[in-house]
Amino acid sequence: MYLCDPKRMETKIKTFSQFGATGNGGITRHALLDADIAARREFVKCMETIGAKIEYDDMGNIYATLAGSNPEAKRIVMGSHTDSVPNGGNYDGVLGVMAAMEVLETVVAENIPHEHPLTAIIWTNEEGTCFKPTLGSSATISYEYLPKDLQAIYQHDDIMKAESLFHPSLTFEQALKDSGFYGKRENRLTRDNAKYMFEMHIEQGPILETAGNNIGVVNCVFGMRSLRVSFEGQTVHAGTFPMNHRKDALYAAAQAICYLHEEIDKLGYKDLVYTTGEITCKPCVHNCVPNFADFSIEVRYSDGEVLEHVEKIVHALADKKWAGCKCKVVDCWRRETVYWDEKLVACVEEAAKELDTKYQFIHSGAGHDAQIISYLLPTTMIFVPSKGGLSHCEEEWTSVEDCTLGASVMLNAILKADKK
Amino acid sequence: MYLCDPKRMETKIKTFSQFGATGNGGITRHALLDADIAARREFVKCMETIGAKIEYDDMGNIYATLAGSNPEAKRIVMGSHTDSVPNGGNYDGVLGVMAAMEVLETVVAENIPHEHPLTAIIWTNEEGTCFKPTLGSSATISYEYLPKDLQAIYQHDDIMKAESLFHPSLTFEQALKDSGFYGKRENRLTRDNAKYMFEMHIEQGPILETAGNNIGVVNCVFGMRSLRVSFEGQTVHAGTFPMNHRKDALYAAAQAICYLHEEIDKLGYKDLVYTTGEITCKPCVHNCVPNFADFSIEVRYSDGEVLEHVEKIVHALADKKWAGCKCKVVDCWRRETVYWDEKLVACVEEAAKELDTKYQFIHSGAGHDAQIISYLLPTTMIFVPSKGGLSHCEEEWTSVEDCTLGASVMLNAILKADKK
Repeated sequence: MYLCDPKRMETKIKTFSQFGATGNGGITRHALLDADIAARREFVKCMETIGAKIEYDDMGNIYATLAGSNPEAKRIVMGSHTDSVPNGGNYDGVLGVMAAMEVLETVVAENIPHEHPLTAIIWTNEEGTCFKPTLGSSATISYEYLPKDLQAIYQHDDIMKAESLFHPSLTFEQALKDSGFYGKRENRLTRDNAKYMFEMHIEQGPILETAGNNIGVVNCVFGMRSLRVSFEGQTVHAGTFPMNHRKDALYAAAQAICYLHEEIDKLGYKDLVYTTGEITCKPCVHNCVPNFADFSIEVRYSDGEVLEHVEKIVHALADKKWAGCKCKVVDCWRRETVYWDEKLVACVEEAAKELDTKYQFIHSGAGHDAQIISYLLPTTMIFVPSKGGLSHCEEEWTSVEDCTLGASVMLNAILKADKK
Repeated sequence: MYLCDPKRMETKIKTFSQFGATGNGGITRHALLDADIAARREFVKCMETIGAKIEYDDMGNIYATLAGSNPEAKRIVMGSHTDSVPNGGNYDGVLGVMAAMEVLETVVAENIPHEHPLTAIIWTNEEGTCFKPTLGSSATISYEYLPKDLQAIYQHDDIMKAESLFHPSLTFEQALKDSGFYGKRENRLTRDNAKYMFEMHIEQGPILETAGNNIGVVNCVFGMRSLRVSFEGQTVHAGTFPMNHRKDALYAAAQAICYLHEEIDKLGYKDLVYTTGEITCKPCVHNCVPNFADFSIEVRYSDGEVLEHVEKIVHALADKKWAGCKCKVVDCWRRETVYWDEKLVACVEEAAKELDTKYQFIHSGAGHDAQIISYLLPTTMIFVPSKGGLSHCEEEWTSVEDCTLGASVMLNAILKADKK
């Protein structure tokens, strides 16, 4: 068994937390903009220091590779992303990159023998908060193996032409070229040059912490349905129009949100999660009855039949009027549950056992680059606990010990996979 | 009895509907910006044509006056506003201005004797949609007679310095000076130079139409309470955080909106109206549980005790948690019910009767310049029907016949008041 180094890990956490620091303990690090470029340069500098070979592909994905003992062997890769949501934390994504760096640094420091080349990767623009869509770079290199509905979302031209939310005329392509990380297409990860992929990540939920476990052996990423529910009413003056003749679109939306909670909760699936996170309202002034409101709803679970049941409940909203308003339901996005490669999951579990960690099997409710890469290569993930289950916020936190333990599990799991 | 002229009224409606026309049947005419300046110039041109004397005061209010037979008598004034809400209709406000023009035009055309000078007025910036606050110009000239809570809202410096919502560095004062309608303070309407005020307006509700009446003899403007209800939750990842530990601020707001509807409806006051018209949500993205949501609620009714009862229901929201979120309720604005001057209401009723109109007594749920001027002068209002009760939207419509009838009622009511 090999152990990664908590001191090195702590230094990395401190260093990367500076890139895009908000001053409130978190970071804002949009893909390919200044703070992200600084994080990428730090990665390249550290990996060059230990003698890794650096390559960029045409999506700006960065590969840092240590050669293995067998010159014919394909690479075993690890990685995650350095970009964040606005006012996000210091762990979502970047911890997976730091863990991959730590694995390679430990391999060099301890002179650990391995047959396959080992590669640490930064995937470009996982969050998709500045340039849509999310997961666009891992999807581009996996494109020909993706299911049709995912291919429809990841049209290469659209990805390259996507404009920044914050600098309207700046495209993803231009930002990529400006960043200095625009590399060659032949450097892409492929089935010919890579064998397995591992991604370590924070859980982003409270399950490990609540159970008192330090390691999550992830077995799947939940499938998801994303829908949009809208209501069309009539704008009238708030002071002059009698209550019983109103068509109040915001009241309709409020009723529907409450109704969905009741109906979906009745199903009684403990791990099912659903969220109405976004709402719009027009004209949205205090003295007009709203004529339009819509909200997002997304639902995530392992069993596709349950997801379809929930979809039906949402679609049935359109069968009646709500507060006098017509209701429309639109399907926005769906993805099916992805199960990780069984032999890689077994490598992770064995490593967690041998390191004497408190571990458990766990699903991922969030999407990750690994879930896209799983169409290209056998893939798996390792989770470490999130304090209070908080993520996508500045309070996001994981102890140095757990971060290091996660990296150690990944290192030992990779060494097992190296022999398969 | 004298009758106004439907042909002249129709021409005015067509002419004013061009200023700020959206192309969809309505107008966007922000106070003191281009379209409003065009409407004001049209008013001045028409009133000069009939020999009225034109004056502007230092709030840009425009006065067009026909002298009366008694050189000592104070003016009897009529008026409303030419500005509109964004994508508003062709009647809210401007109909009161057109009716005042029509009254003066009829007086001249028919050579109607009158003792008091008669004045048609445009009040500047009634809507307050571009420069806050609403009713700021009528409030400025009535300031010393306003109740303290209204005085607090209408600080002259704040009104002048208010910045445009659409041109950030443009202040109300600058727009006023640029408009060419910045006049002298000594031109303001005062108790020394004016006796009574009349305002004709569309009902902005469906009561007259539903009852089959053409004239509303308005007896009061409803009092109002405006509050803001906010919820503080916790942003967590939509895919990873179990349902039973969430603090979902948007779900909390939805529950509270539904609860308020239930509780206020239980009170059973037929004419009471309340509206939750505005909502905000943070971070407002589909894959985050919202950590903040707030909404406006305003309630209007004649009886102040009932308004206080509703206020208590709203405030009581803060006594418990909603969907795990803390709730805060803030009072934003209040105004008490204003009853019109009884002898002027009687003049309007007599005129409506003598003209053989179908009329009824009615309250105003909306605020109007008249309600502010009522602190300065004896004041009353006349309503004409709104098709479908629609207002603050492009569908706003009143027949030429009803518009003309309303002007005729105002003319004859003024001639009665002229003798008192």
